[in-house]
Amino acid sequence: MNSEIKIFSPATVANVACGFDVLGFCLDTIGDYMTVRKVDDKGIRITNIKGFDLPFAPEKNVAGVAALSIYRQLAPNCGFDIEIDKRIKPGSGIGSSGASASGAVYAINKLLGEPLDKTQLIHHAMQGEALASKSLHADNLAPAIYGGFTLVKSINPLQILSLPTPKDLFATIIHPQIEIKTADSRAVLPKNIPLSDAIIQWANVGSLVHALHSSDYNLLQSSLNDVIIEPHRKQLIPHFDALKSNVLKTGALTCAISGSGPSVFALSKGENTAKLAQEAMQTTYANSGIDFETYVSKINVEGIKIVE
Amino acid sequence: MNSEIKIFSPATVANVACGFDVLGFCLDTIGDYMTVRKVDDKGIRITNIKGFDLPFAPEKNVAGVAALSIYRQLAPNCGFDIEIDKRIKPGSGIGSSGASASGAVYAINKLLGEPLDKTQLIHHAMQGEALASKSLHADNLAPAIYGGFTLVKSINPLQILSLPTPKDLFATIIHPQIEIKTADSRAVLPKNIPLSDAIIQWANVGSLVHALHSSDYNLLQSSLNDVIIEPHRKQLIPHFDALKSNVLKTGALTCAISGSGPSVFALSKGENTAKLAQEAMQTTYANSGIDFETYVSKINVEGIKIVE
Repeated sequence: MNSEIKIFSPATVANVACGFDVLGFCLDTIGDYMTVRKVDDKGIRITNIKGFDLPFAPEKNVAGVAALSIYRQLAPNCGFDIEIDKRIKPGSGIGSSGASASGAVYAINKLLGEPLDKTQLIHHAMQGEALASKSLHADNLAPAIYGGFTLVKSINPLQILSLPTPKDLFATIIHPQIEIKTADSRAVLPKNIPLSDAIIQWANVGSLVHALHSSDYNLLQSSLNDVIIEPHRKQLIPHFDALKSNVLKTGALTCAISGSGPSVFALSKGENTAKLAQEAMQTTYANSGIDFETYVSKINVEGIKIVE
Repeated sequence: MNSEIKIFSPATVANVACGFDVLGFCLDTIGDYMTVRKVDDKGIRITNIKGFDLPFAPEKNVAGVAALSIYRQLAPNCGFDIEIDKRIKPGSGIGSSGASASGAVYAINKLLGEPLDKTQLIHHAMQGEALASKSLHADNLAPAIYGGFTLVKSINPLQILSLPTPKDLFATIIHPQIEIKTADSRAVLPKNIPLSDAIIQWANVGSLVHALHSSDYNLLQSSLNDVIIEPHRKQLIPHFDALKSNVLKTGALTCAISGSGPSVFALSKGENTAKLAQEAMQTTYANSGIDFETYVSKINVEGIKIVE
């Protein structure tokens, strides 16, 4: 059994259009690298953090809390040193904390001979996520650990569905470098919604799942439509309407808020359209005075990967 | 080309648990028989109605209005005589008007060499349904015409998805012989619902579609759960809680309101469990003082069938 493992822990998109709070998918070209080493000294230590200024104390670090959770359950006769090469900016809306939390539990489970299944890993990773988001949720963790598209059917009991991923599907991301406070992104959400809107939304969720199973891109396009959350949250993202309008003109299937923003994602059939969507995003933001990053990525159907 | 056709037009279940307004399925052992004859005399005539006292004037009869709608579009150089052997009691909540409307358009389309596709047939059948329900809806028509499970993605434009049907799935129906006024079944529905409940419902709808695709009976069971409509509408159905509780004890996957009631359906894996569910329904209602009928049916994956 290896005593050291290096992994790529991917960024993920949650709240996928109609699937607020339940649907997510996994990215391929954006993610953190983590090296986890099995050592004689018991306990969890974070020994190195590159990229961003994050706490080293395990109980104050998302990866650390997740690692402590799995470590306490498995109680192995060893400890773990964790090095984090953080590439996903915290607060970007593409699962930065989810990557840290899921990466830590994935690596420790692997180094101990995989005693836990994927759902159990998500349970432990959720403890780390809760440090960042103050609530238990799995919609970024599930795609990171399962890969592809996932549906969080319920949190209690934890029930995750791994959905099929059509093979030509590509994502485009723009990350405007602004901060959206979690409190603000929650405050704009309505507590109650019209039943008539909810019916449209659940018809879309059902249709989206059918479209993923049948690789029906036209149906994906008409299902990836959010009538409930986006009208409220888009006000927090500068130039959202122009961004969406310009991206959809390229032939992209959808353009919607990633997680609770500020990142915005598009999904496209084929890499060419995904790159056109990227250009449309860049053009829209070029004169905005707001710094931004963009990415194009195939949907990552594996999730976390061992790189060494 | 035949100049006369006899069809079986099946009863259907709409508002399937979590899928209010969008999900339906088709029954096999309950349905109307209709004989439609192509004649030289132009126009639509209803020449015989057995079973229930319904209007003969085409424009006042659900089958007649649907027939007139397709007839006007296709404008053939002939007419049609329609005989209806009505077996599904109007107002039962298992698609009585849907069977009449879909049967009429199906038969006329067949006798004219099938110029229209299934979605177009539903468009015309909806005109007949509207006579009975005062609104355009397709959730009983879609399973009658497509068979199996269907999802009405949208009415305008009309978009119907045909979902896979796991092969061991059986339905049980109890029809308590009471009348629920459409106005009452609408009045009890909330205009607004909590976002948190809507999220549970769309997670269930997505999971149900995945369960149908993967023939996952455990997931069917945990997805066929309605947190939004049933709590309000169940008050209109005597002994609903006892009925549901007794049916679920048999191992049935779900027990929920069919359409807007008063019929209640169960879904089970295998005919044996479906028959146990039937016994549980009969026992629950035995001393209620309310007349009732019960049925067990395989899911009908064909929809309307030609019998002669």
